[in-house]
Amino acid sequence: MRRHFSLAATVLTAALALASLLTLLACSASPAPSGVVSSDPLPPVEWAIAIHGGAGTIPRDIEPQRRAAYAAALRAALHLGADALAAGEPALDVVEKVVRSLEDDPLFNAGRGAVYTHEGHHELDAALMDGRDLSAGAVASVTNVKNPISLARLVMERTPHVLLVGPGAEAFAAEMGVVRVPQEYFDTEHRYRAWQRVLEEAKKQDDKDTVGCVVRDVHGDLAAATSTGGLTDKRFGRVGDVPIVGAGTYADNRTCAVSATGQGEEFIRHAVAHTISSRMAYLGESVGDAARAVIHGVLKPGDGGVISVDAAGHVALVFSSQGMYRGAADSSGRFEIGIWEEMER
Amino acid sequence: MRRHFSLAATVLTAALALASLLTLLACSASPAPSGVVSSDPLPPVEWAIAIHGGAGTIPRDIEPQRRAAYAAALRAALHLGADALAAGEPALDVVEKVVRSLEDDPLFNAGRGAVYTHEGHHELDAALMDGRDLSAGAVASVTNVKNPISLARLVMERTPHVLLVGPGAEAFAAEMGVVRVPQEYFDTEHRYRAWQRVLEEAKKQDDKDTVGCVVRDVHGDLAAATSTGGLTDKRFGRVGDVPIVGAGTYADNRTCAVSATGQGEEFIRHAVAHTISSRMAYLGESVGDAARAVIHGVLKPGDGGVISVDAAGHVALVFSSQGMYRGAADSSGRFEIGIWEEMER
Repeated sequence: MRRHFSLAATVLTAALALASLLTLLACSASPAPSGVVSSDPLPPVEWAIAIHGGAGTIPRDIEPQRRAAYAAALRAALHLGADALAAGEPALDVVEKVVRSLEDDPLFNAGRGAVYTHEGHHELDAALMDGRDLSAGAVASVTNVKNPISLARLVMERTPHVLLVGPGAEAFAAEMGVVRVPQEYFDTEHRYRAWQRVLEEAKKQDDKDTVGCVVRDVHGDLAAATSTGGLTDKRFGRVGDVPIVGAGTYADNRTCAVSATGQGEEFIRHAVAHTISSRMAYLGESVGDAARAVIHGVLKPGDGGVISVDAAGHVALVFSSQGMYRGAADSSGRFEIGIWEEMER
Repeated sequence: MRRHFSLAATVLTAALALASLLTLLACSASPAPSGVVSSDPLPPVEWAIAIHGGAGTIPRDIEPQRRAAYAAALRAALHLGADALAAGEPALDVVEKVVRSLEDDPLFNAGRGAVYTHEGHHELDAALMDGRDLSAGAVASVTNVKNPISLARLVMERTPHVLLVGPGAEAFAAEMGVVRVPQEYFDTEHRYRAWQRVLEEAKKQDDKDTVGCVVRDVHGDLAAATSTGGLTDKRFGRVGDVPIVGAGTYADNRTCAVSATGQGEEFIRHAVAHTISSRMAYLGESVGDAARAVIHGVLKPGDGGVISVDAAGHVALVFSSQGMYRGAADSSGRFEIGIWEEMER
């Protein structure tokens, strides 16, 4: 019997080794445990940036001149940010600088070029967030601040608060001495005509224009910034997802920085930016998988898009609308912009 | 050798069975996979409700009269909600009704009894959310609406929007014909003295009063509602976490309903309510584990607390402040309130 037991012991040992292997295999096949971020096949980069100028119905047959103007504007903003990052500027400064430039450009629905409210005015929202410590600043329904994104930064740095709204936010702007402008500064022919069309056709306005920027700087820090004039013909002090931390804007060095553009209310209900961060943190998804899961799996087709960057500088530009004005660049030499599906260098 | 192989086969079969068992055990010991909500040891109930009246520094030696007044107010609100749930009323109606009653009670910092702003006024915020479809409504910085929670419900049901702020929200209130009151309606001796103390001592105000209610109704639906007057001596249209969907208020039938109270800005940065929901969805944590992980593991000690209920009617009342005015009841006969650690029936 001794030999039998000896053989049995050998078989048992082998079987237990097999069991251990099976255990390992079975567990690694199950969803990744919390905190493990699955590695992306691409190598990390020193710095990376993504920008957007809004997502929505952008007809393929827009006039070549108009298309060229958008392309030039996106390239200019992307260059501004890429140069700053290459020079070692910190993430928070870069997202503010880039979004300011997009606010100053009348092509985009943020700052100058903001859409008209139902009363024929302009009400602006903006937010930014620092991925190092989750500090954040936001303003909503401001009316006379030239660069709402810079006011949002002052909220972050000069108050214990995150969000200031309406006349109170204007009073804060006055106290901070930021540049304030009459409402006419925000007027543009282009947005006025869009508003008139909405009034005439009494149709639901589905412009989803917004501008945003996410960055991974040479120090490995992440930041996000978003700014908008909101919806054409909006009423009643409507505030969308942009100044809502976790909806349109989020940044956390441990996961990603996100800036969103689209049907603001849907982005609020699904806490889109924070969901992308949570999926990375808790499911171990890559920034691209997390962004796609939310835009294509949670939101409805056409709801909009997001730009996102992770700690390794991997960028995701994901949208379910017909188009999204966007661009991405990084230290490996990537520099491209896009409006519809394809990107161009 | 035949016998040897036969024995070996028996041992191998037994070992493989053991291996399968080990595999199962090893996997169930690793973090739960996405989407699986670990079952709570308690059986599900037909309905459940939790309420709060704010978290903060509540000295143990408050006057017995004052303590009795809070206890009576909590019991009354809890009874109102429990009776409505037992009668089969839907979750959304119940959270609105209970929070309205807390807004009407001058003891709490919401509706009548709201704190004073730096200018000596009152600015109110409120939000509610329907766990069935994630529809939500919120208002911020309203000044003349008697019951902000009901205006938030109108935002949800009568507009395509989630959040209206300031004068625009007031104009919407006027159009909806809701009861509006002069600012003096919100005045209370108690809050006036608190404001004067803040002004005299020029000290940082750390009142974290808010009211909230979360519910699981007999149909299995979840809803959450939160309302507040914000911070004593607040300035510049400061908005806290209450009307921020995902920060102070969230409800999703698939996970939980949450209402928070505490350092609003910290609750925004960490998207507290949505993080609890995400941990349940992605890590498979119970509602209690998820709430504790956020209040004790993510926020700083003293930041505040949350009330939460899951789809089985399990309630979590978690806080890191010295106290939290709160209560919980369910169809199994539970009915208790608490201010500090211990609960009383």
